[in-house]
Amino acid sequence: MSLLTVGTVAFDSIETPYGKADRIVGGAATYISWAASYFINDIKLCSVIGDDFPDAELDALKAQGVSLEGLQIKEGQKSFYWAGRYHDNMNSRDTLVTELNVLADFDPVLPESYKDAEYVMLGNLTPEVQMRVIQQMNKRPKLIVLDTMNFWMDVAMDSLKKVIAEIDVLTINDEEARQLSGEYSLVKAARVIRAMGPKYLVIKKGEHGALLFHEENIFFAPALPLEEVFDPTGAGDTFAGGFIGYLAGSGDLSFENMKRAVVYGSVLASCTVEKFGIEKIKNLDKEEIANRVKRFADLMSVSV
Amino acid sequence: MSLLTVGTVAFDSIETPYGKADRIVGGAATYISWAASYFINDIKLCSVIGDDFPDAELDALKAQGVSLEGLQIKEGQKSFYWAGRYHDNMNSRDTLVTELNVLADFDPVLPESYKDAEYVMLGNLTPEVQMRVIQQMNKRPKLIVLDTMNFWMDVAMDSLKKVIAEIDVLTINDEEARQLSGEYSLVKAARVIRAMGPKYLVIKKGEHGALLFHEENIFFAPALPLEEVFDPTGAGDTFAGGFIGYLAGSGDLSFENMKRAVVYGSVLASCTVEKFGIEKIKNLDKEEIANRVKRFADLMSVSV
Repeated sequence: MSLLTVGTVAFDSIETPYGKADRIVGGAATYISWAASYFINDIKLCSVIGDDFPDAELDALKAQGVSLEGLQIKEGQKSFYWAGRYHDNMNSRDTLVTELNVLADFDPVLPESYKDAEYVMLGNLTPEVQMRVIQQMNKRPKLIVLDTMNFWMDVAMDSLKKVIAEIDVLTINDEEARQLSGEYSLVKAARVIRAMGPKYLVIKKGEHGALLFHEENIFFAPALPLEEVFDPTGAGDTFAGGFIGYLAGSGDLSFENMKRAVVYGSVLASCTVEKFGIEKIKNLDKEEIANRVKRFADLMSVSV
Repeated sequence: MSLLTVGTVAFDSIETPYGKADRIVGGAATYISWAASYFINDIKLCSVIGDDFPDAELDALKAQGVSLEGLQIKEGQKSFYWAGRYHDNMNSRDTLVTELNVLADFDPVLPESYKDAEYVMLGNLTPEVQMRVIQQMNKRPKLIVLDTMNFWMDVAMDSLKKVIAEIDVLTINDEEARQLSGEYSLVKAARVIRAMGPKYLVIKKGEHGALLFHEENIFFAPALPLEEVFDPTGAGDTFAGGFIGYLAGSGDLSFENMKRAVVYGSVLASCTVEKFGIEKIKNLDKEEIANRVKRFADLMSVSV
């Protein structure tokens, strides 16, 4: 099994009530790749950076089994840069700076070796770029997961709906599900959104967990209650990476396994938020992951 | 087993995005008693009303096995009245009217037949009234559960802490847990609050479910995803009634059974919010409850 992942590879400056981190490595594809790498070692990354990106970070990804053949490096240009400040409750944030830089005219050209990937994770990017990736595949992948955000609903709803019609799993948060569907009830929203194309819908609720919808089935995974949430940046991307990584690694697309994938995605996301940026997700071992899966099982276990 | 429940029996006027209901029957003890009555048929209600309260509503409670010997009826006075309007998202509301009426000088005098109850549910009321009830018991009950709200933390924190020190289970929402403990992380908040006395803490998160804390164990029950939330009034009281009713009915205070009680409390609360006031919780049957318990089990079931 191989996993193609598309998204930003970028720098972030982050302020939270617990501290500041200046120009650290981030980006959806970075979090996705790190999270997925604990389950599958054939990952193909498609993105774009400037010549300002540290070689050591790229080498670390390669060492995890991530191919960078499809990572465009633009000489003389700068990588995408985002700066934001979280509010005290960590549930909302202000964007302080967005510099598109190399992302402004990103054309995702897939190398031949990427075009037969069976699993595709389309990280948050313009819907047009996401569609361009799908169109280049040699055959329909076994599974396409797409992550997006309210910004694209505001400025590119038509393009977004076109690409959503081509995918299998959509991951968005609760407010986005309401915006996309026009329904307040998440049960009704899920029905409307699944009628747009995706057979599966994952609604991410941050500290309140995640819901998986498929036909008339609903599965809920809580977020692991944590002593401290240090930096929520990348939690959604990490969830998506853990989710599709677990599916790609197991090759099992049953609803039961989708449920497990939601738990694994949540487990990985619970790690990301405990440190700034990718610091924690870069340094996990199987024991820590297994330990958190056990905590999840305990948290949810009841016989009624 | 018998259950003593203390709280308001009142009238509510409610506006939600779905409609209005004028001067319908409500009050914490009303919701608690109805919810608990599906699990135990020896309930002793302690409260106060005016002479304006409909006999039919009292008769309906009696028919469910609720003793009203401790329900004071004040001739020539009016029952407690609350009016509120919910915002579009149903998670917040404005209080439009609060008329204390008979509640202003409520002295909860327990009849002798109430003083040996093994289970005590102290619904949301002034901490002083809650303490007066505990002081009248002949012996320490097997289980005392207390529900309260931010209002009492604002105006009577010292009295509240005194009564919290005497109880076994505290049920509050997430913001109240943060206010009471001074900790933002719910894991840390739970530790601080359990050090105040209660061995168990239930944090109610409305549409986001409920957390049960005991020693270093945490259990999470989601809220049942619903097509429509019609009126959230009384959901927390219903939860508390279902929770203690299930425990009193089964007589089992193990952590495993506490978890089940959280699920049953959530099941009953999911009924309450689907209609205005007590309309739905008054008219449940065992099949509907069993059906929802099954939906809960499906929602939470995963093998990892």
